Amino acid sequence: MEKIKTKGYAAKGSILSSLSYMNFERNAPKADEVLIEILYCGVCHSDLHQVKNDWKNTIYPCVPGHEIIGKIIQTGSSVTKFKTGDTVGVGCMIDSCGACASCKEGEENYCEGPVGWTATYNGYMKPKDKEFNTYGGYSDNIVVKESFVLAIPVALDIKAAAPVLCAGVTTYSPLKHWDIKKGDKVGVVGIGGLGHMAVQIAAAMGAEVTAITATEEKKNETITLGASHVIISSDEKAMEAAELSLDFILNTIPDQYDINTFVKLLKKNGVIVAVGLLGPYKKPTDNNEVAFHRRSVAGSLIGSIAETQEVLEFCAENNISPMVELIPIQEINAAFDKMVDKEIRFRYVIDMQSLKQEKE
Amino acid sequence: MEKIKTKGYAAKGSILSSLSYMNFERNAPKADEVLIEILYCGVCHSDLHQVKNDWKNTIYPCVPGHEIIGKIIQTGSSVTKFKTGDTVGVGCMIDSCGACASCKEGEENYCEGPVGWTATYNGYMKPKDKEFNTYGGYSDNIVVKESFVLAIPVALDIKAAAPVLCAGVTTYSPLKHWDIKKGDKVGVVGIGGLGHMAVQIAAAMGAEVTAITATEEKKNETITLGASHVIISSDEKAMEAAELSLDFILNTIPDQYDINTFVKLLKKNGVIVAVGLLGPYKKPTDNNEVAFHRRSVAGSLIGSIAETQEVLEFCAENNISPMVELIPIQEINAAFDKMVDKEIRFRYVIDMQSLKQEKE
Repeated sequence: MEKIKTKGYAAKGSILSSLSYMNFERNAPKADEVLIEILYCGVCHSDLHQVKNDWKNTIYPCVPGHEIIGKIIQTGSSVTKFKTGDTVGVGCMIDSCGACASCKEGEENYCEGPVGWTATYNGYMKPKDKEFNTYGGYSDNIVVKESFVLAIPVALDIKAAAPVLCAGVTTYSPLKHWDIKKGDKVGVVGIGGLGHMAVQIAAAMGAEVTAITATEEKKNETITLGASHVIISSDEKAMEAAELSLDFILNTIPDQYDINTFVKLLKKNGVIVAVGLLGPYKKPTDNNEVAFHRRSVAGSLIGSIAETQEVLEFCAENNISPMVELIPIQEINAAFDKMVDKEIRFRYVIDMQSLKQEKE
Repeated sequence: MEKIKTKGYAAKGSILSSLSYMNFERNAPKADEVLIEILYCGVCHSDLHQVKNDWKNTIYPCVPGHEIIGKIIQTGSSVTKFKTGDTVGVGCMIDSCGACASCKEGEENYCEGPVGWTATYNGYMKPKDKEFNTYGGYSDNIVVKESFVLAIPVALDIKAAAPVLCAGVTTYSPLKHWDIKKGDKVGVVGIGGLGHMAVQIAAAMGAEVTAITATEEKKNETITLGASHVIISSDEKAMEAAELSLDFILNTIPDQYDINTFVKLLKKNGVIVAVGLLGPYKKPTDNNEVAFHRRSVAGSLIGSIAETQEVLEFCAENNISPMVELIPIQEINAAFDKMVDKEIRFRYVIDMQSLKQEKE
């Protein structure tokens, strides 16, 4: 099979969890695939979890990155949706079984096939090719099936569009699924990469947004993003005053936390949806708090390809833009440290031109 | 204020958690209240929790009982809904604030007033009369506001109707709220007082019911009640085979358990509702299982007065009857022991004629 040379940054082992330069090869595009030159790639908290093997499923070497913006430089023979030169995006998935009920309903993100959807990185291409791991967007090119490639609306600044592909759709999908509409009182917990998108999207949907953050310094920026109210989570009085006040809460915290702290803020019939944590909460949920107001504690996982395209258009129409800081790939390890220290406002995006200086 | 003499059984302290005979007085009915001679009272697992002070809020002496069937023997001057001689019921609530949004919507069970709804026992009548505790149905009479009194349909066997007032409405309310309909695949976890009602009600709604019980010996009876499938929860293979198979699960287990065991059984978008546990689960919920299929973990608390009347009619129309064992009140402590040992099929009901032999 014809191969394509790729430059990237990889975590090479669980002890060596910092990223460093790596050459590798990708398979050339098949008939239904496109080859994309990567221009920008967002830095998601999941990248950090995966590199650190927090989910105990990392396969090394691991090339993270699933907020990819690039240009098509080659198309397979049957590709009809895109042509060379198109500006496109790739999000968290690059394939799914296509045969299960969820895939047929266009919800590939809930694929119930034998191995679920194929992750853009740290995923297997096919169950029968388990040795074939996927490498993500911290690299200068990627090969993806056209049905998993997104068109980037011209109105979006391509430098800033990358985070829409994960942070955007991960928050848009549950806001849409739970039918958030004008006048709803929506809480967003955790004002980082996901949260700062959620505030903008929920506000554009007409909701009255209450942002809940641990970081006092984010208050003014969060109001600028569209929040009507900001609560500092350590302020017990403010948290108590907000009890029974919200219809819906999107919790974007990417680490273990006590869900009970936030359940109390929900009104009767309120729903809290966790999108940042893939693992157990810190403490058992107290069903007393849940049952006394018929609340629900739910979860949601990224979004479908159709929703990813939708949120790109939604952001373009509503003038929503991730707030990003461009970095060269050589600064990725320092960027990870700053994410842990909550210093980032609000998403790092790697400028992939910086890879050119690396020697093969 | 005129008083009425009452005979009852009470737990007199947290150490003396067994019940024994007690004389006490009730206030005579006010204009909008009725005096009911109690004929039967169901024995709910909550009675046991309250007597044992499991919820750390028991006020002694505690006269339990909130599944009350009786006859009206006196009516206040403004009562219009009932007359002397009517067969009536009283469930878990005897009052609520009447002013909050939930009360105005007819959902008194989610009363958001300063002290919530008034429990039939171990509740306060008014915030300003905190010294006035309420005494429940393990007694020969009770005085209740007519708007919290239920009419018992003639088609119901009054010996068996008592458990509909708590076990019935507690399971009917969430099945109705989450819109269970013909063809839905519904799981019922815990086949005790609540669970055996849930199986019958869900089956009557047209659902295909899977009962999940720890007690192998309940299998045949559960099928008779209307379950299409019975899974013994310790059968790991059967539990694994049932993963991703249910639209909705009602969990009636009255003690701490690991919710994760049951979350896995839900399909995409499935909802599990806990109605038996008023406290924290045994372990933290794993949001990985919840988010990967956009599941929800919810809770529900008894049901409204309107729903209680509805479920009484629903049981009458659908020939649903709790399976009860009549006991004299003198056997209540032994009955509690058998409930703990899971020997009961499926609800004890106290025949209140047995109180007549107690000397004042």
